[in-house]
Amino acid sequence: MAFDVSELTALLDGPHAEVRAMVRQGLRPHAGLLRDSYELPRDEFRERVKDALLELAKTGQTGLGFPVEYGGQGDVGASIAAFETLALGDLSVLVKSGVQFGLFGGAILHLGTKGHHDTYLADVVAGRVLGCFAMTEHGHGSNVAALKTVARYDAETQEFVITTTEVDAYKDYIGNAARHGELAVVFAQLEVAGEGRGVHAFVVPIREDGEPAAGVRIEDDGHKLGLNGVDNGRIWFDGVRVPRTALLNRFADVTEAGEYVSSIESASRRFFTMLGTLVQGRVSVGGAGLTAAKVGLAIAITYANRRRQFEAASEDAEQLLLDYGMHQRRLLPLLARTYALHFAQDEVRAALHDVFSGANDGDLARRELEARAAGQKALATWHATRTIQECREACGGAGYLAANRFAALKADTDVFTTFEGDNHVLLQLVAKGLLTDYAGEFEDMNQLDLVRFVAGLAVETVIEKTQVHKLLERVRDALPGSGDEEPPVRDSDYHLAMLRFREEHMLAGAARRLKRGIDGGMNAGEVFSRVQDHVIGAARAHVERTVLEANVAAVRALPEGGLRAALEQLCDLHALSVIEADRAWFMEHGRLTIQRSKAITREINDLCRAVRPHAQHLVDAFAIPTELLAAEDLVGG
Amino acid sequence: MAFDVSELTALLDGPHAEVRAMVRQGLRPHAGLLRDSYELPRDEFRERVKDALLELAKTGQTGLGFPVEYGGQGDVGASIAAFETLALGDLSVLVKSGVQFGLFGGAILHLGTKGHHDTYLADVVAGRVLGCFAMTEHGHGSNVAALKTVARYDAETQEFVITTTEVDAYKDYIGNAARHGELAVVFAQLEVAGEGRGVHAFVVPIREDGEPAAGVRIEDDGHKLGLNGVDNGRIWFDGVRVPRTALLNRFADVTEAGEYVSSIESASRRFFTMLGTLVQGRVSVGGAGLTAAKVGLAIAITYANRRRQFEAASEDAEQLLLDYGMHQRRLLPLLARTYALHFAQDEVRAALHDVFSGANDGDLARRELEARAAGQKALATWHATRTIQECREACGGAGYLAANRFAALKADTDVFTTFEGDNHVLLQLVAKGLLTDYAGEFEDMNQLDLVRFVAGLAVETVIEKTQVHKLLERVRDALPGSGDEEPPVRDSDYHLAMLRFREEHMLAGAARRLKRGIDGGMNAGEVFSRVQDHVIGAARAHVERTVLEANVAAVRALPEGGLRAALEQLCDLHALSVIEADRAWFMEHGRLTIQRSKAITREINDLCRAVRPHAQHLVDAFAIPTELLAAEDLVGG
Repeated sequence: MAFDVSELTALLDGPHAEVRAMVRQGLRPHAGLLRDSYELPRDEFRERVKDALLELAKTGQTGLGFPVEYGGQGDVGASIAAFETLALGDLSVLVKSGVQFGLFGGAILHLGTKGHHDTYLADVVAGRVLGCFAMTEHGHGSNVAALKTVARYDAETQEFVITTTEVDAYKDYIGNAARHGELAVVFAQLEVAGEGRGVHAFVVPIREDGEPAAGVRIEDDGHKLGLNGVDNGRIWFDGVRVPRTALLNRFADVTEAGEYVSSIESASRRFFTMLGTLVQGRVSVGGAGLTAAKVGLAIAITYANRRRQFEAASEDAEQLLLDYGMHQRRLLPLLARTYALHFAQDEVRAALHDVFSGANDGDLARRELEARAAGQKALATWHATRTIQECREACGGAGYLAANRFAALKADTDVFTTFEGDNHVLLQLVAKGLLTDYAGEFEDMNQLDLVRFVAGLAVETVIEKTQVHKLLERVRDALPGSGDEEPPVRDSDYHLAMLRFREEHMLAGAARRLKRGIDGGMNAGEVFSRVQDHVIGAARAHVERTVLEANVAAVRALPEGGLRAALEQLCDLHALSVIEADRAWFMEHGRLTIQRSKAITREINDLCRAVRPHAQHLVDAFAIPTELLAAEDLVGG
Repeated sequence: MAFDVSELTALLDGPHAEVRAMVRQGLRPHAGLLRDSYELPRDEFRERVKDALLELAKTGQTGLGFPVEYGGQGDVGASIAAFETLALGDLSVLVKSGVQFGLFGGAILHLGTKGHHDTYLADVVAGRVLGCFAMTEHGHGSNVAALKTVARYDAETQEFVITTTEVDAYKDYIGNAARHGELAVVFAQLEVAGEGRGVHAFVVPIREDGEPAAGVRIEDDGHKLGLNGVDNGRIWFDGVRVPRTALLNRFADVTEAGEYVSSIESASRRFFTMLGTLVQGRVSVGGAGLTAAKVGLAIAITYANRRRQFEAASEDAEQLLLDYGMHQRRLLPLLARTYALHFAQDEVRAALHDVFSGANDGDLARRELEARAAGQKALATWHATRTIQECREACGGAGYLAANRFAALKADTDVFTTFEGDNHVLLQLVAKGLLTDYAGEFEDMNQLDLVRFVAGLAVETVIEKTQVHKLLERVRDALPGSGDEEPPVRDSDYHLAMLRFREEHMLAGAARRLKRGIDGGMNAGEVFSRVQDHVIGAARAHVERTVLEANVAAVRALPEGGLRAALEQLCDLHALSVIEADRAWFMEHGRLTIQRSKAITREINDLCRAVRPHAQHLVDAFAIPTELLAAEDLVGG
């Protein structure tokens, strides 16, 4: 073996190795949940999941991000690492945990103040109080600013009156709502003295002694594609009264005198500041998606390394699936990309930790983190969907049996591309940051404002005002001009320069098209619609670049040796696969000759053959406990 | 409206409009199954599905392909059309119907002779006897020739003795096995007087009075990713004795004197002839996948035409999802491709009908049909998986609720890419036919033989002996040389010439690489492994060409008018999307300039905007009964 598997596991586990080991151990006794998820009736499974959650809460592993005084460890990075690792097990437990500790508990922690913390957090962390995060409505998911639930302040009683005002304004898809939630953090349009103040969050009791509270109506969302251990539901509010202190008042408050006050002047900036505290959820979901992809790859690659079908290399013995060129092409670039996204996730998790621990906080750091988290979540969850699908197909009919895990992996992760922000909407957010260089005003902008902002700049300024500017220098340094000798195909600096060039060019192009549309007299909405796929493509190119940079940096930080050599191969396989997938674009933009494009494809085939002997070690290094790998049929002794 | 929806429905329903209307009507009372599929416990749902199947059988619609004397109508084309339409409803009913009437009944019809027909078919068609198609084993799925179940002929008692000989030789994933099947058509290695005669099929009772027959052991495959209304299971045989007449003896028999006789001399030719009769299953699954894609698109496009999110075109009103450029890009090319595959399916269904009705039978016609059916099945089912996934994501969180149909659509169709032949294996079959020009010997070849066959030809002969030769003439006629003026971007002849050129070039290239590998002294298996993705790519290019040809032909057959204009747009959108997806290849091979490649992308965007106003009509024309569209939340009044 070219490297030691445990050495690679240690690298992947990184600074949170201890936490990850604890979570892995903690999951083993709950491995039966994997079977319960498809064998138990829905109601029973929901109870099993709740019970498992409460047991895990007792170990402390689900509350690591909360302050010590409420039972946590004040370690955000560790809490994300724990969540990522928890995704090795049943994903209903994971998502219910995310709802309780990440969304519900996180909202109280980040949007509330000491009174709220003292009242709720110890109980939340211990699981003594279960709660919901009631933001999404049936009519509005992505467009949170347009929510229709209203919280009117009644100065006389010093209460807020919460009401579902329109037919599609009920809260929907809310985890913990259908059965277990007692409290909900409810997002509603605040009205004080007849004036609308935008979306704010309130702690509202929704259930007492197991029954909906007065004025609250709850419906079960019923069966879902996956995650049926989570009790998602709908909530209607009919004039529900909560005290003035129910407002989570870190960024805005209503005084005893009935006056609205806020430390943030701009209403929309205030709104985005509140949403920004939820960035943790996106980092968590992206990481969990990667874990699920790892489980899928561990099963499919182990199987392909055992299963023989058809005489191919000899008349006498059937050939291992993984020795077929096509099978390598199907699985190994996905494995390489999983590693790349893993290293990028390490960076995003660390950035989150630095912002929330105060080590590197500030407006710009927060905005950059939000964009980074949004982009990483989008790419990681799409990758999970694609990878698990390919792995299922690569395991044939056996992959279709629930016992072999793909059923749940596919079904449970499917919504990852949607919740915590629809991936396309998230990439638009990334693009907005890039196009405005995270200008102070950027958070205030809706799609129309963005178009007008970009259109309002002079053409040169478009480039200078965007992130492109900073990239250009680096690209010029590293990417050889057409006259120079070409760098080797396997050269990380070359790969990075290619991705930087693409990002710069797509961003500038999108900006020019937005500007040209407006200058040509077109309606801003029409302009946006026409340029939308270009804008989203530019954002994606940006995220791809950050992912590759993280991968290259992680590999370069390793000492010379077998492990580094193996990960360099894998990094090259990933980088070249990204370039190959978009090689048409590079040719269209003069950055790839026909010969070189073909050479890249050949190199990928060579790299697949080079990685193939390490493939088993590369998935073994994920250190997935046997009980959780399950799939006895596919990977069992 | 540019055209009349009912006119388009009539075009899509084609010659089988009456049958399709009957099946649509017949499904309406069973719409409740869509809900039962996720609300009932598995055992109850299986019974519900069986009951629905038996009710449908009474109407005659599930037996149209059987001879009149056994209760059918002797109309293969109609039976496929009925099956395709049945896929509008719950897919467990569909697949159980496919097992009973297509696979089990079809095997008796096509592999058996009059004695078997008289004994079984009337009961099979009426659903009085339910059966299994026991081909796949745990250890061997794609490689059927390597099955390990043995049927040894006992001359003394004139019986076959059926035995599961190895630990992974049990039959697996067998529909109807776990619960309802009384008989099974069992594929086993026939041994007569100590001599192995290859795989043959036998009718074997596996259950009596609801209990496994003597010597038969049955296990339930348990929960699956989808299709949980079908009782898949495992079967072991321990010296099970069946009379000599249990052999389905159309192509080979054992005489009373204990002598093996066959009308087909070559053992492997005999084997492929037997498998060839199962082509109907592949045509059926491909068609069913398309129907499922249509349901997904009908829901997602209707939703996108109602759902508003974000102010984009104006500050006052949110914009319809389908007016966003990105949303059009996500859904409309998939809609266009669904239409293209629909017209291709019409051709494959008609070819199947002609072969099996004797209107156009013969060795070459059968081989070409087999290849066509294999290719169409692969592309149609991959398209279904991709389309349903995109539609689910395009419906956001609502798409994740089981009530809105995507849960079952996704889960149930997921195995379509695997069963009735793994898609990659099917494309290899297509390639084999193309590379050998369906030579008589082609059916005898395994992967190694294929490599050697191609390597054994002179280079020029490689091209002449392949299908490429026939294509070349047409390509030269239609594709302008680089010196000529370029044809308009929207020109079907140009699109066809591009796809023909790609096919020819990829096929010839694959052949050359195979030959070069062997000539260079490489092991045939290693050569195959290295060229495998090229071989499969060539097959895919071939199928893409046949799909586009079918689409263009169908549109050209229409009278001038609004409908034809709309379908021309759609056909262009499909053709250009296919070219765009592989535009790197066309540039690499000198068939696309950079400017033209970019022009194609722009044209696709324009076409998306042009198709958008018709999008609703284009899905309404699928004529999906409201009860089956379900998804009240997404498409309801």
